[in-house]
Amino acid sequence: MDVLGTIKTRRSINFFEIGKDLADDKIRELLETANFSPSSFNLQPWRVVVVKDPERKKVLRKCAFDQPKAEEASAVLIMIADVGGVENNIERVLDSWQQLGYIKPELRETYTGMAANLYGAEDSLSRKIFAVKNTALYAMNIMLAAKGLGLETHPMDGFDEECIKREFNIPDDKIIPMLIAVGWLKSGITLLPRAFRRNIEEFVTFNRY
Amino acid sequence: MDVLGTIKTRRSINFFEIGKDLADDKIRELLETANFSPSSFNLQPWRVVVVKDPERKKVLRKCAFDQPKAEEASAVLIMIADVGGVENNIERVLDSWQQLGYIKPELRETYTGMAANLYGAEDSLSRKIFAVKNTALYAMNIMLAAKGLGLETHPMDGFDEECIKREFNIPDDKIIPMLIAVGWLKSGITLLPRAFRRNIEEFVTFNRY
Repeated sequence: MDVLGTIKTRRSINFFEIGKDLADDKIRELLETANFSPSSFNLQPWRVVVVKDPERKKVLRKCAFDQPKAEEASAVLIMIADVGGVENNIERVLDSWQQLGYIKPELRETYTGMAANLYGAEDSLSRKIFAVKNTALYAMNIMLAAKGLGLETHPMDGFDEECIKREFNIPDDKIIPMLIAVGWLKSGITLLPRAFRRNIEEFVTFNRY
Repeated sequence: MDVLGTIKTRRSINFFEIGKDLADDKIRELLETANFSPSSFNLQPWRVVVVKDPERKKVLRKCAFDQPKAEEASAVLIMIADVGGVENNIERVLDSWQQLGYIKPELRETYTGMAANLYGAEDSLSRKIFAVKNTALYAMNIMLAAKGLGLETHPMDGFDEECIKREFNIPDDKIIPMLIAVGWLKSGITLLPRAFRRNIEEFVTFNRY
């Protein structure tokens, strides 16, 4: 499916085919393809917990205010924004840039300083924004790649973050910007028409706000 | 171009063809196509300032630590995350949901309460995360839609946010998660190989963190 058509026809679906297995390899293909996502300084500050086990999905549903799709989708991805993404990955990013000719070795220190300035300390607001925005870029790529693999999705943010962290052993300093339910549309279900979008004239201006 | 191929071949380019006009209508098509992006509660908390005017691009370059692409790209999009997106759009979202049969009229109040609970007060951290993550979803759609329209992009977060707000008249309560430079690859330029991506085994786990 072409990219413009995919963007135009992707929908967030509420009713998933229940009990249909989504193979681990297919999930890996999905997460790997989407992983070509860009990120700030290429720091890739995201992690994913794939919830497939029926008992674990029941637990996730409980944390997601009892929304059926958290259990009914074949898999649910817990998208995790890692505020430690700068420290965890900066050296490898710079190694890669240096090796591929993006930067000269003597500029490593300058780049390390830039990243520290731009993304602040681990507990700062700018660091949280850094982690969340990049994880959302990856999330959007996942939703579109899913369409390309014949799958449907629903991004969810109706959940109790503390409950998910506790139940899935996720460290407290991480942020969970969303869950993504993945699977197939339940047979017999017809989607309602797409909900409203603003006319771009309302939110786009040229040259000044 | 198919969606999986687009995701795999999209690159962030540093060298844009200088002085090539990107028609306003093409920019509108880009922003309109990407606007099918999903968002929390369909609240669409994003705005865009399109910087095309050569004098304004010079100003933007100054705010972007003198990075040439801020001036050399045909257009630069200032992506704006609107923390007021809940209050601005909730009534229209609920009107649309009610009209299309997503919710029963008597549930309007419940849904308004849910949105208020999930996304907090305008100055809260959860509200900032809400605005940024959704704007990033839209941004990723823009970068992929651009490929479908024969354009190249570069998401940038090397800039002084206060400088851009001041120069482009953007209210102080908004957040600018990134700029997106849009245009065409400069002729004669060959891209360096893509920088490293983590192996998914490193950041994906099944059922528990």
